[in-house]
Amino acid sequence: MLIDLNSDMGESFGAWTMGDDARMLEIVSSANIACSFHAGDPEVMHSTLSLSHARGVGAGAHPGFYDLQGFGRRQIFGDSPAQIERQIVYQIGAMQALAKSVGTPLRHVKTHGALGNLAAEDPALARAIASVDRDLIMVVMPGVETEKAALALGLPLVREIYADRAYADNGNLLSRKLDGAVLHDPQQAATRILCMLEQQAITTVSGRTLPSRIDSICVHGDTPGTVAMAAALRTRLEEQGFTIAPMQADGD
Amino acid sequence: MLIDLNSDMGESFGAWTMGDDARMLEIVSSANIACSFHAGDPEVMHSTLSLSHARGVGAGAHPGFYDLQGFGRRQIFGDSPAQIERQIVYQIGAMQALAKSVGTPLRHVKTHGALGNLAAEDPALARAIASVDRDLIMVVMPGVETEKAALALGLPLVREIYADRAYADNGNLLSRKLDGAVLHDPQQAATRILCMLEQQAITTVSGRTLPSRIDSICVHGDTPGTVAMAAALRTRLEEQGFTIAPMQADGD
Amino acid sequence: MLIDLNSDMGESFGAWTMGDDARMLEIVSSANIACSFHAGDPEVMHSTLSLSHARGVGAGAHPGFYDLQGFGRRQIFGDSPAQIERQIVYQIGAMQALAKSVGTPLRHVKTHGALGNLAAEDPALARAIASVDRDLIMVVMPGVETEKAALALGLPLVREIYADRAYADNGNLLSRKLDGAVLHDPQQAATRILCMLEQQAITTVSGRTLPSRIDSICVHGDTPGTVAMAAALRTRLEEQGFTIAPMQADGD
Amino acid sequence: MLIDLNSDMGESFGAWTMGDDARMLEIVSSANIACSFHAGDPEVMHSTLSLSHARGVGAGAHPGFYDLQGFGRRQIFGDSPAQIERQIVYQIGAMQALAKSVGTPLRHVKTHGALGNLAAEDPALARAIASVDRDLIMVVMPGVETEKAALALGLPLVREIYADRAYADNGNLLSRKLDGAVLHDPQQAATRILCMLEQQAITTVSGRTLPSRIDSICVHGDTPGTVAMAAALRTRLEEQGFTIAPMQADGD
Repeated sequence: MLIDLNSDMGESFGAWTMGDDARMLEIVSSANIACSFHAGDPEVMHSTLSLSHARGVGAGAHPGFYDLQGFGRRQIFGDSPAQIERQIVYQIGAMQALAKSVGTPLRHVKTHGALGNLAAEDPALARAIASVDRDLIMVVMPGVETEKAALALGLPLVREIYADRAYADNGNLLSRKLDGAVLHDPQQAATRILCMLEQQAITTVSGRTLPSRIDSICVHGDTPGTVAMAAALRTRLEEQGFTIAPMQADGD
Repeated sequence: MLIDLNSDMGESFGAWTMGDDARMLEIVSSANIACSFHAGDPEVMHSTLSLSHARGVGAGAHPGFYDLQGFGRRQIFGDSPAQIERQIVYQIGAMQALAKSVGTPLRHVKTHGALGNLAAEDPALARAIASVDRDLIMVVMPGVETEKAALALGLPLVREIYADRAYADNGNLLSRKLDGAVLHDPQQAATRILCMLEQQAITTVSGRTLPSRIDSICVHGDTPGTVAMAAALRTRLEEQGFTIAPMQADGD
Repeated sequence: MLIDLNSDMGESFGAWTMGDDARMLEIVSSANIACSFHAGDPEVMHSTLSLSHARGVGAGAHPGFYDLQGFGRRQIFGDSPAQIERQIVYQIGAMQALAKSVGTPLRHVKTHGALGNLAAEDPALARAIASVDRDLIMVVMPGVETEKAALALGLPLVREIYADRAYADNGNLLSRKLDGAVLHDPQQAATRILCMLEQQAITTVSGRTLPSRIDSICVHGDTPGTVAMAAALRTRLEEQGFTIAPMQADGD
Repeated sequence: MLIDLNSDMGESFGAWTMGDDARMLEIVSSANIACSFHAGDPEVMHSTLSLSHARGVGAGAHPGFYDLQGFGRRQIFGDSPAQIERQIVYQIGAMQALAKSVGTPLRHVKTHGALGNLAAEDPALARAIASVDRDLIMVVMPGVETEKAALALGLPLVREIYADRAYADNGNLLSRKLDGAVLHDPQQAATRILCMLEQQAITTVSGRTLPSRIDSICVHGDTPGTVAMAAALRTRLEEQGFTIAPMQADGD
C-alpha cells in the first residue's frame, strides 16, 4: 500500500523564510515547489530542488499568479486562459531547467492558491492549464474542473485530499470562514485520513461519503503545528502499513 | 558567404511597446528575446517566438538582471556567480518551454546589458554563464572573458560585431560618452561592416585592425533610425553577395 | 465659462515610453499622474510634475492597483477596503512629496483603471477611497458610488465626462465590447461634448439625457489619434467661449 | 541622561514575517521603518506605525534601493544622485502620509543597507540624500560622508553606534568577513556600549578611541538572539541611570 504525502515548499523569498522545508522533506514524499511568481526565487528553487533530490522526494512545480505581495492568494481577473497558460508554461520551464541543473526529474505540477481555485471552477482555464505539459503528473482535487480537463486530455493524474481541511457536501473544501473548516488536532486529522483511505472516499462535514480514488495527501508546513501534524500523520500511516512514496500517475 | 544579423527583441512589457519587432524580423536572421527579467513578459515572449518562427528567424534567449525599472542596464552587485548562474538557468528554461510551445527550437543565448558587460570582464561570472547550457550557441564579442569561458568549456560559439558602435583599440566598444561612439549614418556604418567582414578583423577608431572571426552582426531596432540602418546594412550585405542566415555554431 | 480638460499622464516606466505627455500638457489643464503602482516611477513622476508645473497644468494623483504587468487594468480581489485605502494613502503621499519637491501643489486625485471601476460599484471601497485625503479634489463620474462617498464625506468634488466614450442609459460607460462604444471622429466627439455642456447632462446612446453638473472632460493621449482629438476638442471649446482652466472644487 | 535605541522594523512583506517587531517595540525608542522598496508594504508600514505610536516609539523612514529580492543589500549602479534623491523623496512621502493617517509624527530618516553604505562614501550621493527633507532628523554614523552632508545643510542630526558591530580604526564598521566583526555576547556588547557612551568616543578593535558625540544606539531584532541582546542592553543602560527616549536632534 503506497501513499504519497505532498506539501508546498520553496516558499521563502530573498531574505524572507517561510516554513521549515528541511524538516518537512523528512516527512513528505512529494514537494510542490514555488516558481518565483507568488513565492520563491531562482536561489530558493535551486536549494529546494537540491534538498528534495537528496531526500528522495519527488519534485513538482507549483505555479501561481504573478503576485508576490499577495502570495498568489489574490484572484486576478483580466488575463485570458491562453495568457495564463503561457504564464504557467514559463514557470514550469524555469523549474524544469533548474531541476535538470541539479539532476532531479520534475515529476508533477500543482497549481497554487487563487490560480488553483479559479481553475477548479472554470473549465476554460482548467483546459488551458491541463494543456501546458502532457508529460507531467497533474495533481488535482477529486471532482473539480481541473480533474475533468486532465482526464479529457489523458494526462497522468493524481488525486489528493487535504489532511487538515474539512469538506463540504459537494466535495469542495469548506470555507475557512466557517467553524470547523480547519482541523488542528493531529490524531483526529490522521484518523479521518485513514478512514478516507480505507473507504477510498471523501468524508464531508455532514458525514456523507463521496467515493474517489485517493493517491496523495496534502499536508502543510508553515507553522510548528502543521509540521507536527504532518509528522503524526506519517507515523499513523506507517503504523497502518502504508509506505510513503512519491506520487505515481494512476494511468487514467 | 553566410552572415547572421542579430537583434534584441521582445523588449515590450505589459502595456508598453518597445521597438518595431515585426519590421525587424523581416531584416534580421536571429532574435535575442528578453526573458521577463529586464524586459518582456510571458505574453511578449510567446508572440515574439511565434513571429520569429513564422519568419524563419533563429530564436535565442537574452537573459539579464532582474531589473525591469532599470531595463537591465544597472549593475547589481551582491549575488555570487553561482547565484547569477541560477538566475540565467531560470530565464533560459522559461524561454525553452515557451519556444517548445510554439514549435521553434531555441538556438542561442546572449547576455543583456549590465549582465553582459560584467561577464565580459569577470572570468568567474563568465564561466558561470558559460556553464548554464552546453547545447546552446553562445554569442560573444571577440576578446572578452565570455569568449574565453565559452572556448574553455567547448561551447558552440558565435562572435559578433556591432553595426553602429565604434571600437576602442583594445577591442572593447568605445564608451558612449565619447564622441563618435555611436554611428548614425547607415551607409557609412554598412561600409565599415563590409570592410570588417572582408578583413575578418575589427577596425578600431584609430584605424588599427584586430583579427577575429566574425559570425554575426548586431543591429538595433529601438527607433525608426535604427530600423533604417539595419535595413540598409542588409541591402548592402546582399549586394556584396552575402546571404543573411541564422547563426551557426562555428565549431570551435 | 471655465471648463477643465483632464488626462492620464506620467504612464511611462523606466525605459518604456507611453503617450506624448509634452504635447498633451499643451492641451489639457489637469494631469492625472500615475504613482508607480500600475505605471510611472519616481523619475517619471518627477518629470511629469515638473512639466505640469511649467505649463500651469493642475497636478493630480492617479493611484491604481500594484500591477505594472497588467497596467492596473486587472481586477485584483483579496485585499479589504481598508488595505486598499492604505495602498492609496501610500501612493498619494509619495506623489505629494514629489510635488512639493518641484514646488507644485497636488490638487486632485482620480483612481485608475480596475481600481476606479471597482470603486464605482462598491460602496465600501468607494468610502475607503474617499477617506484617504479630505483636502484633495476627488474626480468622479456622475452617479457612481465614488461620487456618493465623496458627497457623504463632504469632499471637494469634480464630475467628469469622457470625450471619446459613449454612455449607456444608466449613465455608465458603454462597454468597449459594444459597437459605437468609442468615438473616433474628433469633430463628432467635440460636438457631443459641447451639447452635454450646454445641457449640463450626459447624452446616452439611445438619446436620453441624464442631468448632471459637468466640471471636467477626460481626454486621452495614448496615440496620435487621441492627441488630435484632444486638440480638436480644445479648439472647439475655445471657439464656443470656454476657457480651459485647471479643475476647481465645486463646493458640494 | 537620555539615550535612544533605534532598530530597523517593518521588514515583513506580504505573507512573509521578519523579526519580532512587537517585542522590539517594547525595548527600543526609535523605529526605522522600511518603505516598501526593499522590505515592507503599505499594510506592514501602517501596522508598524500604529504599534510604534501606541508604544511611544519615535517613527522614522528607512528608505532603500528598489530591490525586494535582494532586501536592499545589493549595490545598484546606474542611477544618478538626483534620481536616487527622487526615489527617497517618494519613499519618505509615502511614509509621511501613512504616519499622518495613524496620527503619529515622522521624526527621522535613516538610509538602509547598500544605499546607506554607498552614501556613506559618496559625497554627491550623501548630499542628494541630505537634500530630501530638511525637517527630519538624519541618523548617521560619525565620520561618514552622510554626516558631512547633513552638517553642511544644517539638518537636525543624530549620530549612532552599533551595539553588535566592531569598529575598524578608521571608524567604519569592521567587515563582516573578518573575525570578531559581530559581537554575540549580550553583556560584553552592553559593557562596550556603556564604555563608549561614557567616553563619548568609538572604541575600535585595536583599542583606539575616536571621539564623537553619540546620540543613539542601533540594535537588531531579526533573531531571538538579537532581541535578547537588545533587551540586555536596555537593562544595563537603565541600571547605569540612562533613560531610553526617542531621538532628539542635537542642534548641530
